[in-house]
Parts: sequence; C-alpha cells; structure tokens
Amino acid sequence: MIIFQNRFMDREEAKVDMEDRGYQFGDGVYEVFRIYDGALFDFDNHLDRLVSSAQKIRIELPLSLNEIKKMLMGLVKENSLVNGTLYVQVTRGVANRTHHFPEHPKALLTAYTKQSERPFETTNKGIQTILMDDIRWLRCDIKSINLLPNVLAKQTAKEQGCKEAIFHRDGIVTEGSSSNVFIINGNDLQTHPANNLILNGITRRNIIGLASGLGLNVKEKPYGVEDLLASDEVFVTSTTLEVSPVIGIDSTVIADGQPGPVTRKLQERFEGRVLG
Amino acid sequence: MIIFQNRFMDREEAKVDMEDRGYQFGDGVYEVFRIYDGALFDFDNHLDRLVSSAQKIRIELPLSLNEIKKMLMGLVKENSLVNGTLYVQVTRGVANRTHHFPEHPKALLTAYTKQSERPFETTNKGIQTILMDDIRWLRCDIKSINLLPNVLAKQTAKEQGCKEAIFHRDGIVTEGSSSNVFIINGNDLQTHPANNLILNGITRRNIIGLASGLGLNVKEKPYGVEDLLASDEVFVTSTTLEVSPVIGIDSTVIADGQPGPVTRKLQERFEGRVLG
Repeated sequence: MIIFQNRFMDREEAKVDMEDRGYQFGDGVYEVFRIYDGALFDFDNHLDRLVSSAQKIRIELPLSLNEIKKMLMGLVKENSLVNGTLYVQVTRGVANRTHHFPEHPKALLTAYTKQSERPFETTNKGIQTILMDDIRWLRCDIKSINLLPNVLAKQTAKEQGCKEAIFHRDGIVTEGSSSNVFIINGNDLQTHPANNLILNGITRRNIIGLASGLGLNVKEKPYGVEDLLASDEVFVTSTTLEVSPVIGIDSTVIADGQPGPVTRKLQERFEGRVLG
Repeated sequence: MIIFQNRFMDREEAKVDMEDRGYQFGDGVYEVFRIYDGALFDFDNHLDRLVSSAQKIRIELPLSLNEIKKMLMGLVKENSLVNGTLYVQVTRGVANRTHHFPEHPKALLTAYTKQSERPFETTNKGIQTILMDDIRWLRCDIKSINLLPNVLAKQTAKEQGCKEAIFHRDGIVTEGSSSNVFIINGNDLQTHPANNLILNGITRRNIIGLASGLGLNVKEKPYGVEDLLASDEVFVTSTTLEVSPVIGIDSTVIADGQPGPVTRKLQERFEGRVLG
C-alpha cells in the first residue's frame, strides 16, 4: 500500500502525470522518515520541516497536518513496517507547463515505505569521504526535489569508493551531499550554522541536544577546510546514515582511521533515543 | 499523440512511475523547440544542446540522435502542428530511490506538442521586468529540470505585473529566469558570455549572428546592473519570447518606454529567419 495523490492505493495503480510540476520543474518538497521498531522517529520534527519547506516555496499542503499525520501513521501500520524508511513528497500538482505557478494549484502528496536495515557497517567502521565544491543554489534550507547537484556529488563519491561528498563553498565547509558535517576538537563540537547554505537535519538537531547534555561546547559557526582536515574527529549525520564517523577525507586520514571516542559517546546517546 | 518512454502513444496512456528519477531528483534535461509553419526552427542546434546537456550530467540517451530526430519530426507531422512548441525531456529513468546513479539506468524520453500563437503582444509592445538576485546553482549551462529557482523568480515577476525576472549575481547581470538578456549602447550589443552562469540560448546565438551581419559590435562580456539600467536599449531572447524589448526594469524606464530602433532591426532580421 502507498499514498498517492492524497489517498491510499496499491503501488501498481500509482501513475504520475507527465505534466506534474514535480516531473517538469522539480517543483516539490520531500522528507525521509526513519522507522525504528515500528515507530516513526522524531515524527513531529520531520512533519514540521515538511510544512516549512512547502511554505518556503509556497505550496499549500493538500491535507491538514493532522490528516497527513494520521495517514502516514496508518501507512506504516498497514504495511507492518518494523524497520525502514517512509518517503513523503509533495509537488505543486498537474498543470500546463509554464514557469509561474498554476492559477489553481492542487498539490499532490505521495508516500511509500521501504524496509531497510540500520547502517551498522558505516556507523561502526566509519566512512571515507571526498571534498567537493558546493555549487548548489543559495536556498539549501529548503528540502526540495531539485537534487541534481547532490546526485552528481554522491555519484562522484561512489566512483571513488566513498560514502559521502563533503561540500565547501569558497573554503567554508557547509554540509555533505545528503548529511550534515560535525568536527570535534578537544571539548568543542562545531558545525555550520543552520542558515540558507545548509539543510537543518533532524539528526543534526538531535546531536546538538545530546552533545550539550554531555558537556560538550557546541558551536554552530562556519569553519574552513583546513579546520576540517586537522580535526580530532569528524562525523556526518542524516536520517539514513545516523551518526557515521568520518575516517578519511580524500587522502587525509582522520582520527588515525578509527571512529573517535567523542563520536562513540554521541552514537551511544543517539542509540538511547532510537531505542526510545 | 505523444512520445512517452521512448515510443509513440496516446496522451491518456502515458503515466510516469513515482520512482522515475525525474520525479524524485529532477534528474533529467529538456528542450523546448519552436514550430513555425510546420517546420522545427533551428532543429539541429536544439538537438545538439539536448545531447550536450545529457552528456554533462552523464545521462545516456535511450535512442540514437538520428532516431530521436526522426521520431520528433514524425510527432510534429502526426499532430499536424503548424504553429506551436515541442517539449522534449529525458530523465535517468526508474530506480529505487538513492542519490547515486542506478547500476543500469534506462533513460526515458518524453515529448509532446502544443499549439500556440507567436508572442506578438510582447515583441511589439515590449515587456516590464524586475531585477532579482541570481541564487541558482553554478551549472546554469545545463538545461536541466531542476527549475525551482526559475519558477520562484517567474512567479515573483508575474505578481508584480512583469513578464520576466532579470537575474544578477553580485551585481553582474547573468540572464533572465527563462531568457537571455542583451543591452545596446550606440553600436555595441552586449550580453553575458556563455559560461557556467547562463544557458546559451538558441535565440541568443541567432541574434549574435544577425547582429554581426548588421555591423553591430558584439561583445560577450559581463556587465553590471548599472550598465543595464543606463543602456540605450535592452531586450531578452528565448524560444518562446523570441526577441522581446525590455521597456522597464523595476521603476526604471528603458528607451523611453518604447522598443528601440536597434532592437526593431534585430527583430526584423530574426523574422527573416523564422519565415525561412
């Protein structure tokens, strides 16, 4: 079962119109939710961000927040999903192709679940990464489906045997192609501030909260590529990568090529939240 | 009749899969062709650009260039289209959602025609425009379906009673939200060079050729917002706007609010090409 065009139906029935603005302009927003043990993790924060992304590009959601919430929970239950992800997308709907908004847009919500294991391999062993120029637009705070630069960066990383590309804009580290990036130096935990240049990740927010609880000195402040490469520890966060230690960036070895002790402690605390 | 997933079919049959990468990532490229009097205008240059856009994001076209050419010409003929546009889009195809390319991508080509009149109202009277910050990514030379910033700019222009938004990046005029921008001063015709910051329009190329033939001094060189606002004449070009004089930019009146004489001459020459 999936949700398509705002109602429940079978996967096979679901067909998008070729003049859906999502298909012709990438005119839509999305969220990826994680389901742990049958429960939607940090559900409300994800939903709030969906609402906020839609508002920022002036898409009016086709259903009330309460209806959406009920339908998504119903979908997870209906599909008996225990561990996996829920993908939700809202586009500005179908209209004759022209750049400006349609006169009477009818936004379309699509949602489906996928069973998937947790990323223990990457969270345990850490990941190799590459550095890339951040060539994206200047509204990365919007979780839109205009994802071509992210796609191209992730593919480049993959071809170099890496899990993630870390972006920098004029030497300032912004975020990963599908994650946020943190550095640790002594008792300091630092990450790019949540402005127009990054997406304010839900896992990012969790980690900031947990780090403060651990007595770390959290700084949401820009830092440079040299800082990144010279840091005691580095990790990335995302709904699917959770808290993944970075053990290499291009040819630079980070933290002797092992997940560091502070990262480990944060992972433990995060695990506490996941297990509820 | 349309072309969908690389073959001819009826519009009603055509349904996109919700996991088409065009729908989830905007992972695709497109072209808009103009048909004048039953003939595809500057067909080969549009086709070449489609090939080039696909190459730049490493989409392998699903058919040979010759096959595509034949099918598109067949479609225009089949639909007895005399005046209008042909829209063609190629996406990286359907795959389980993950940022990097699928292992064995099968690109999908979609094409359809629309009957439409020529933009005589705007080419005769000129258009009002607004200035906006260019917040797009740094590969505007790729005609991709990641068009959200263009959509938002065009909508802003429309709400201010304008036909187009003119982008500037740090004070340098790049192009319009769906057009190229030219300024005229004396015998000089100037436009932004065709680098990564603009799309090298087909009409743009035609105008550059025609201007040289008219003895104008063509400069493909960046210029600032102050130059734009102080110019003798300004016009925009695109496949759908053709050569449209700009008579106002925000509150600044251009060329006394009338299409200027050099723009008129270029329009005449362009008309000569359109009429074949």
